[in-house]
Amino acid sequence: MNILGIVVEYNPFHLGHLHHLRASQEKTKADITIAVMSGSFLQRGEPALTDKWRRTKMALKNGVDLVIELPYIYSTQKAETFSDGAVSLLDTLGVNKLCFGSESGEIDAFQQTVEKVTEHEHELDLLVKQYVKRGLSYPKAFSEAFDDYYQDSSSNTIDLTKPNNILGYQYVKSIKKRASSIKAYTITREKSGYHEKSLSNKIASATAIRHELIEKGEPIERVEANLPKASTEELLEHMKLIGDFAHWEHYFPLLQYKIMTETSETLCQIYECEEGLEHRLKKYIFQTHSFHHFMEKVKTKRYTWTRLQRLFVHILMNTTKAFMEKYCEPLSPPYIRILGMSTEGRDYLSSIKNSLSIPLITRAMQMEHPVLQRDTLSAQIHALPYIKKYGLTEEIKGIPIQFNKEKNVFTNE
Amino acid sequence: MNILGIVVEYNPFHLGHLHHLRASQEKTKADITIAVMSGSFLQRGEPALTDKWRRTKMALKNGVDLVIELPYIYSTQKAETFSDGAVSLLDTLGVNKLCFGSESGEIDAFQQTVEKVTEHEHELDLLVKQYVKRGLSYPKAFSEAFDDYYQDSSSNTIDLTKPNNILGYQYVKSIKKRASSIKAYTITREKSGYHEKSLSNKIASATAIRHELIEKGEPIERVEANLPKASTEELLEHMKLIGDFAHWEHYFPLLQYKIMTETSETLCQIYECEEGLEHRLKKYIFQTHSFHHFMEKVKTKRYTWTRLQRLFVHILMNTTKAFMEKYCEPLSPPYIRILGMSTEGRDYLSSIKNSLSIPLITRAMQMEHPVLQRDTLSAQIHALPYIKKYGLTEEIKGIPIQFNKEKNVFTNE
Repeated sequence: MNILGIVVEYNPFHLGHLHHLRASQEKTKADITIAVMSGSFLQRGEPALTDKWRRTKMALKNGVDLVIELPYIYSTQKAETFSDGAVSLLDTLGVNKLCFGSESGEIDAFQQTVEKVTEHEHELDLLVKQYVKRGLSYPKAFSEAFDDYYQDSSSNTIDLTKPNNILGYQYVKSIKKRASSIKAYTITREKSGYHEKSLSNKIASATAIRHELIEKGEPIERVEANLPKASTEELLEHMKLIGDFAHWEHYFPLLQYKIMTETSETLCQIYECEEGLEHRLKKYIFQTHSFHHFMEKVKTKRYTWTRLQRLFVHILMNTTKAFMEKYCEPLSPPYIRILGMSTEGRDYLSSIKNSLSIPLITRAMQMEHPVLQRDTLSAQIHALPYIKKYGLTEEIKGIPIQFNKEKNVFTNE
Repeated sequence: MNILGIVVEYNPFHLGHLHHLRASQEKTKADITIAVMSGSFLQRGEPALTDKWRRTKMALKNGVDLVIELPYIYSTQKAETFSDGAVSLLDTLGVNKLCFGSESGEIDAFQQTVEKVTEHEHELDLLVKQYVKRGLSYPKAFSEAFDDYYQDSSSNTIDLTKPNNILGYQYVKSIKKRASSIKAYTITREKSGYHEKSLSNKIASATAIRHELIEKGEPIERVEANLPKASTEELLEHMKLIGDFAHWEHYFPLLQYKIMTETSETLCQIYECEEGLEHRLKKYIFQTHSFHHFMEKVKTKRYTWTRLQRLFVHILMNTTKAFMEKYCEPLSPPYIRILGMSTEGRDYLSSIKNSLSIPLITRAMQMEHPVLQRDTLSAQIHALPYIKKYGLTEEIKGIPIQFNKEKNVFTNE
């Protein structure tokens, strides 16, 4: 049986995602497709534009069989931890094929790059550190170091400055770390760049779509051509209920309040607050009243936008270094949380559930685990700016969404 | 020279305050009147309805010569600490007469009550503790204990269940504690009760006035008959600039966020969080989206509204027990912060400033002292819900307001 695993954020699910999903299913002759999806806060340190239940519905309607949550402690991290957590969850669920989108499109190149890097990991690390010291961001430094080391090599490697190549490289590496039997595949991404802001292409990036909906405040109709019908329906339903899409500006009063009321000493205990960054934050927080403006003040070549955004998520969530040290073990996640399933997904789950090595969670309150409690809290913090329309109970009441593909209906609403 | 000291909150300055001010000045033949005024958060654990600068202007226009700030660490406390801080500041400034409003109106009764209590402090304490254990609030318990102890006494004592009597009693006691030469006077309060919500009387309580302006959202004109002209002018000016009066509901998103993201262990380190109250707060915070509703859920006979509100101010401000233990010494305040002065007030200040035992502060940044930094932060937190109209810079830029009584104009605007 071909069990396809994919790693997604679906923020929101657009035509590029649909292309990736269909092509992956075709390439791997998938019987079942399992998506591990970031919950409330995403890898680039942003709140998801809708809650995870809405994004789960988009995934199911578009053809995913099983949606599971990538816990907050992995989802808001650098590519390596994000990937380790995601791949471990898929591996645990019996996935035997993993297919990711990439700029490169050649799986051999990924495999070879991983081989090379693991062979000379220590030497590369030293080179990377030198570049970081000179002021390069980590991905850029890694890419430069890699090129330096293998400049004379004629072999087939990938461009590690491209965001999807980085993630793909990490997925292949995570499979290797777990000594998993998962086979990796890759699909060339359709034209639009990851960070592209224009809608010119039908396959627009999620960034471009969010830019229209959030920064420009355009109605959903404006991006309808870039979305599968199911996504448009769900986004319209979301807007009808909540009236707004989540974005950082809505959380800024909380972030500002938090930074104002913590001492430098306590701020410094927050995960990813390094190198005296706390003083920089405390200095500028009193001089601003918007997230964007604050970012512009705080960021430097060294502290990239993404790195700062991830730190801000951890500040917002009050997640300490001590907590992460104790609980963030991405190669051995403590549970699998189901967000949604098709009839086929449910049957697959039934067939494997007795042999699972970790608990299967269907309700937030089912297990008292600090990592799960972080997921619950992250959903509640995510809902906080919209509390009057939404309450904080969705996350507590939430049970996996069930979907009947044939009839195209949710069966437990 | 008669230097009159008064302890005020002016939230807002109303006709009752004007009556108290004039009568006190008359009774003590005051040459100079000094008011020590709570800054941003008040003794009952509430945000002041306007910032302190606006309330300083009301005080000056209505005839106060010198307005100084009662630091946050004293202003948001039970009557004893509040009083010790206020009286100490007045004493340091050379005040020789203190006049307070009370239900009793007889200064001898206050003196005798203080004498009696200090004589048998230990026995009374035991009685009070018994009553508290039985579920009475502290003021009620104290009053019961006092009555029990002196039930056969024919002497002249006061009713300590009345809020202004309690404060007056504490002022007299604070003077005694400091062995100060200040002479205490009292004025009978005009009819309206402290907590009275009706406007029936021209001398309405500040509670009644705030009720009209905030809960009922009435325009300022509705309470014009209960205010001196100067107050109406200043409140109108405030509304023109900010568009709203500060009240707890505006701060509730921050309080809710804070309680949600702290663990019970860290919440318990907040000042006045006692007896497992942290668990009660953590339990109910997820079930509500308004301050009033939260209060109704959390309060009990034992945890009175006022006590909880004060705790909430400390949670909002992230003020720990450790901080208060280290810095809250109300009998020896670390500085005097000037908020405003009349020409006469300024001259008086010039005449004494070389003999002052503690620093005179005219700008927030003048001194690096943790207590002063708390005052600055409390003003900034107070301004946070209105930041888009106001910024956080008022407190940093702020210098004492100067007022010319003869010409009825502010001279440094």
